[in-house]
Amino acid sequence: MEIMKTGARELADSPLEWLKGRGESSDIVFSCRVRLARNLERFVFPWRADPATLNAIADTIRARIASDHSIKPLRSLVIDSLDPLARGILVERHLVSPALARGGPGREAAMDEKGILSVMVNEEDHIRIQAFLDGLRIHDAWKAAREADQSLEDLGYAFDGKSGFLTTCPTNMGTGLRASVMIHLPALSVLRKIGRIVADCGRIGLTVRGMYGEGSDSAGSLFQVSNQVTLGQSEEELLEKVYGVASGLVDKERSARTQLMDVKGSELEDKAWRAWGLLRYARIVDRRESLELLSISRMASEMDILPPVPAIIWNRLLLDIQQAHMQARADRPLGAEELDARRADVFRRLFEPLPETGAI
Amino acid sequence: MEIMKTGARELADSPLEWLKGRGESSDIVFSCRVRLARNLERFVFPWRADPATLNAIADTIRARIASDHSIKPLRSLVIDSLDPLARGILVERHLVSPALARGGPGREAAMDEKGILSVMVNEEDHIRIQAFLDGLRIHDAWKAAREADQSLEDLGYAFDGKSGFLTTCPTNMGTGLRASVMIHLPALSVLRKIGRIVADCGRIGLTVRGMYGEGSDSAGSLFQVSNQVTLGQSEEELLEKVYGVASGLVDKERSARTQLMDVKGSELEDKAWRAWGLLRYARIVDRRESLELLSISRMASEMDILPPVPAIIWNRLLLDIQQAHMQARADRPLGAEELDARRADVFRRLFEPLPETGAI
Repeated sequence: MEIMKTGARELADSPLEWLKGRGESSDIVFSCRVRLARNLERFVFPWRADPATLNAIADTIRARIASDHSIKPLRSLVIDSLDPLARGILVERHLVSPALARGGPGREAAMDEKGILSVMVNEEDHIRIQAFLDGLRIHDAWKAAREADQSLEDLGYAFDGKSGFLTTCPTNMGTGLRASVMIHLPALSVLRKIGRIVADCGRIGLTVRGMYGEGSDSAGSLFQVSNQVTLGQSEEELLEKVYGVASGLVDKERSARTQLMDVKGSELEDKAWRAWGLLRYARIVDRRESLELLSISRMASEMDILPPVPAIIWNRLLLDIQQAHMQARADRPLGAEELDARRADVFRRLFEPLPETGAI
Repeated sequence: MEIMKTGARELADSPLEWLKGRGESSDIVFSCRVRLARNLERFVFPWRADPATLNAIADTIRARIASDHSIKPLRSLVIDSLDPLARGILVERHLVSPALARGGPGREAAMDEKGILSVMVNEEDHIRIQAFLDGLRIHDAWKAAREADQSLEDLGYAFDGKSGFLTTCPTNMGTGLRASVMIHLPALSVLRKIGRIVADCGRIGLTVRGMYGEGSDSAGSLFQVSNQVTLGQSEEELLEKVYGVASGLVDKERSARTQLMDVKGSELEDKAWRAWGLLRYARIVDRRESLELLSISRMASEMDILPPVPAIIWNRLLLDIQQAHMQARADRPLGAEELDARRADVFRRLFEPLPETGAI
C-alpha cells in the first residue's frame, strides 16, 4: 500500500469497528484490545537506533505489510507527514500512542479500513500490533492480532526460548501480550466498590485504572482492566484471565445497578433525567461534566429509566466530544471556551431529536 | 353574605387577579398590594379585647360587609372553621397573614371572587383591607382598597386630627397605608447591585426585603418594596413614591439585563437552557432550587433566550409549588421528599408541552 497524506477530518470520520457495540456485554464493556509487542532480530531496539536504522526498520516493515496479501490490507501512515490535529485524532482513537504521535525518524503506523487493526512502528518496540473490538470479543481481537503477527513474523522476531519475545521493557517480555477491556462501572462507583476491585485485581496480576483520571476516581466511571504480567503464562491463559475478570465485573455491575435502583431509585431517576435535560439543553459543558453526564445517562438508558439510545451513539459520543475530533470537524483550532460550547452542540444535535418518554 | 365552610382545594383553585400578569411592567413587577389598617372607635384594640369583644367586633364588621352592596360582594370566612391546609392556602396567597391564620375568637377574613380584595378582621388591627393587582397597578389597587374603606368607615373609625387613623402599632398610624410591590430583580442580583438599592431605598423611607430570605440574598431574586412611613404624607404621595421607585427599579433591571447579555451572554444562555432542561426533566426539586430555576428561566424567556411562556404560567407556578397548594391538590399531607417530587411534577406538567426553540 502507498503512503498517503491523510487529513484529520477523514481520520475523524473513519470507521472503528468497536463503536458498533454489538459484542458480548457491549452495554458495559465498551471495547477490548489485544496488543502484541514484537522486535526484529536484526535491528537494535528503537531507543538505541540511529535515524538511519529507524528508517530502515520502518522500510522493512512497511514493505512487508504492502506485499503480504494474507493479512487485511493495511494503510501505512508516516507520523511526521501528519499534521498535529491528525495525530491527535489517532491518539484519541487509541490507534497510536501519545509517544508515537510525537513523530520522529521511522515512526509510522499502519491500520486497516475497519479500525480493528493497527500496527505501530518504532514506538517503544519495533512493532506493536493492536486489535480493537466491541464488548468482550477479546478472543476475536486476539485472532485479528495473531493474523497480523503471523504475517510479520517472517521478518525474524527477536525471540528467546526462555524469555519468549524480547522487548525494550522487561514488563512486556514473554508473550508480549497485553489484553485490556474498557469497562463502564457507574453503579459500582456510586456504591464505592471500585477500591476493593482494584485491590482484588492487583492480587491476581491484573491492573485496573481509570480511563480519565486514575484509580477509583475515574471521571465517567470508565476503567481499563488489563494483564500486568506477560511472562510465564500462555497467551490463552492471559486472555482467559482478563476475559474472566471482566465478565465477573459485568455481573457485579449489573447486580450493583439493581441494588442502586432498590436503595436509591428516586434519587437515581432524578439524576438520570437531570443529565438527560442537560444533554438536551446545556450550551457549555466541560470535559469532566460531559463524561459524568454520559455515564449516568447511558446507565439509566440501559436500565430503562431513560429512553433507549443505540450503543453506537453512546460510543461515538465518547470520541466526538474529544478535542481533536471537535477541531477536525470545525476545521480550525478551538479555544477552551469554544470547545466547551462545541461539546454542548454535539450533545444537543444528538439528543434533541431523540424520543422522550417523559410522561409523568 | 353567609359564612361557609370552605375547602383547601377550592381555595387553591380560586382566581387571583394578579396572576394574569397584564398590568404595567408585569414581566418584572409580579404584583402590587395596597393595605389599609383601620380600627373601630367603639372597641378596644384586638390585643386588649376579650373573646366576647373580639366576637362582637367580627359580628359588626361581617354584618356591614353583608349588607353593603356598594362594594364587591365579599365572602366571609371564620378562620377557626378552616382546616390547617385551607389556612395555609390563604397564607401562601397572602390573602391572610400567618398571624391571622393562627385563628382565635373573632378572627375572620372576607374576600371577593376575583382575589383582588381581602379584609382581615381582628388581626393586629380590627380591620386590615388589602387589594392585590398585577404589575404596577398600584393606583388601581389603591382605588379598590379605598372603595372597601369607604364602605366600612360608617362603622366609625378611630381617627384623630393630628395622628390620623389610630392603629395598634404606631408604625401604621396616619394613613394606615402600606403600598408594596413584588419585584423580580435577577439581573441586578447577579450584578450584585441589590445591596446599594436596599440602602438607597432606606434613605427615602422605603423598605426592600427578600420575599424568600432576607435582604440581598433572596432566593429567586424576588423582592418586596414598600413604604416604611405611613404618617406625615398623603396617601397619594406615598403611592407615588412607591410607584416611582418601583418604576425606576424596573428600568434599572432592564438595563442590567442588557448589560448581563453583553458581558456574560454565553454564560447566561447556558444557565438559562440548563434551568429549562431541569424544569422539563428533573424528578426531585427542593424549594430553594425551584425558585432559582424559575427566576433564571423567567428572565431568559422575557429576554427571548428561552421560548416565550405566558406570565400567568410563571405566576401560577410561584403558588403551585408551595407546600399547602401542593397538598391541597394531592388531597393529603405530603412529606418533605414527596413535596420535592411533587414540585418536579408540577414543573414537568407545565414545561414538557411547551414549544422548544432549541435549534442550534
